[in-house]
Amino acid sequence: MQWAVSSDMLVEGRHFLSTVPPAALGHKALAVNLSDLAACGATPVSFTLALALPRVDEEFLEGLSQGLFALADAVGIELVGGDTTAGPLNLCITVMGEVPAGRALLRSGARPGDELWVSGQLGDARLALEVFRGRLSLPEADFAQARRAMEWPQPRLALGQALRGVASSAIDLSDGLLGDLGHILRRSQVGATLEWAELPRSALVARQSPSVQADCLLAGGDDYELLFTAPATGHAQVLAAAQAAQTAVRRIGCITAQPGCRIVDANGAPWQGALPRAFDHFLAE
Amino acid sequence: MQWAVSSDMLVEGRHFLSTVPPAALGHKALAVNLSDLAACGATPVSFTLALALPRVDEEFLEGLSQGLFALADAVGIELVGGDTTAGPLNLCITVMGEVPAGRALLRSGARPGDELWVSGQLGDARLALEVFRGRLSLPEADFAQARRAMEWPQPRLALGQALRGVASSAIDLSDGLLGDLGHILRRSQVGATLEWAELPRSALVARQSPSVQADCLLAGGDDYELLFTAPATGHAQVLAAAQAAQTAVRRIGCITAQPGCRIVDANGAPWQGALPRAFDHFLAE
Repeated sequence: MQWAVSSDMLVEGRHFLSTVPPAALGHKALAVNLSDLAACGATPVSFTLALALPRVDEEFLEGLSQGLFALADAVGIELVGGDTTAGPLNLCITVMGEVPAGRALLRSGARPGDELWVSGQLGDARLALEVFRGRLSLPEADFAQARRAMEWPQPRLALGQALRGVASSAIDLSDGLLGDLGHILRRSQVGATLEWAELPRSALVARQSPSVQADCLLAGGDDYELLFTAPATGHAQVLAAAQAAQTAVRRIGCITAQPGCRIVDANGAPWQGALPRAFDHFLAE
Repeated sequence: MQWAVSSDMLVEGRHFLSTVPPAALGHKALAVNLSDLAACGATPVSFTLALALPRVDEEFLEGLSQGLFALADAVGIELVGGDTTAGPLNLCITVMGEVPAGRALLRSGARPGDELWVSGQLGDARLALEVFRGRLSLPEADFAQARRAMEWPQPRLALGQALRGVASSAIDLSDGLLGDLGHILRRSQVGATLEWAELPRSALVARQSPSVQADCLLAGGDDYELLFTAPATGHAQVLAAAQAAQTAVRRIGCITAQPGCRIVDANGAPWQGALPRAFDHFLAE
């Protein structure tokens, strides 16, 4: 077996708002690390928690622990150590896992002709962020759905493990589809064509304006879904792995020898939507 | 093999002063975690670093990296992952190591009749802290020596590994001799007799007033030496392990069936010095 290790540091005001329910914070702090392990097909084994707290706050710690250990128990891992100190609120979780030697999913294995897949649905979490930022308002039930996606992401561990030997590359979506796809493309030295109409979205996202949809689907962040590639000949194996993992997956494009990323509409013509800012450089010329 | 994992979070103003040279901070952040691994006899393999920085500061990062990687290279471990974010200055390092199954040194194995040992010398680091706190002043060369002990602790990895199968329990001294000894005593359900005259100290500490010496030796903190026990029949084996590890060790007392801790003078009579505050409860009645 090989080790797989992921470490994330969450800082108040940057990675979470002071209004976050402590249980959700505990859940998410662990979930984002488990998502990294999922992306390499690893099985999590244990984790450490280091915590800086401005002051002792029983209610906060109670909630944090509840969210953290509910997820740890659900995936069968144990807290094996850590540290607690006074200081500006900061959580650092390191998750350790294992994967059969040489079988980890990497970012570097995508090949021209591979199909490009994503799990679940994209963009709900970004909608919640837009509401918190005051740029969007949503009906109460819609906001609750979006907020649940943002605060309670589900790491795709079963899917990642089922994709060992099936997927040629994988990454988890923490920074948004275009940004994280870029990591695969650079590491694999390939390009991609994305099919706009195929990007999986909830009815809630589908109801938003075109520019909000583009932000949510292409640059959403905080989705914690798996983005992966597999040879076209392995199409049925991908579907079987997804079924075994009880996780929806969708083919959203393909890998090309030509560098860069093209987005096409349902007819295969260049997508005419406005790309989220900061991604202008990303399209192939 | 079993995994051994240690995680520490260092917060500015609490674990280090803003005046610390960045290279020393990088060294110490890794050293304190390696010291935990040394205490269980583990061999370090790799580490992660999560870092929150108020702003990008090239000079700081350059120094930090230099101190960190010099130690990592010296002990043969690699940085395998981590995280960088904006936020109040905070370093969280997690070190992973391995130890043959069932052979880790624990805090719970001390038995009545065991000898009590410590590596190196105690108290120099505490002297430097007293100077920084403005409670003590030292000649420049003395302060430099004390500060070196505080800022550049040397994890006793070779000694810890050599003590596998030799020591019955071990801990590293991060919080001071009495406090850390207390962990062994509680976990092993035993007591101890400490011989004041045997506590290893530098000439610098030996020149200080009795009360400063007591603070430095008994409650110093930041020594990062190993405190360990071994059966009296294993005395020669301890000395051989120390020689193999090229690390000085000293027998400083013994483990007793009677709970609590007694400190005795060179004649075996109760030591008459003033115990550092917060340890009054610690003496056996």
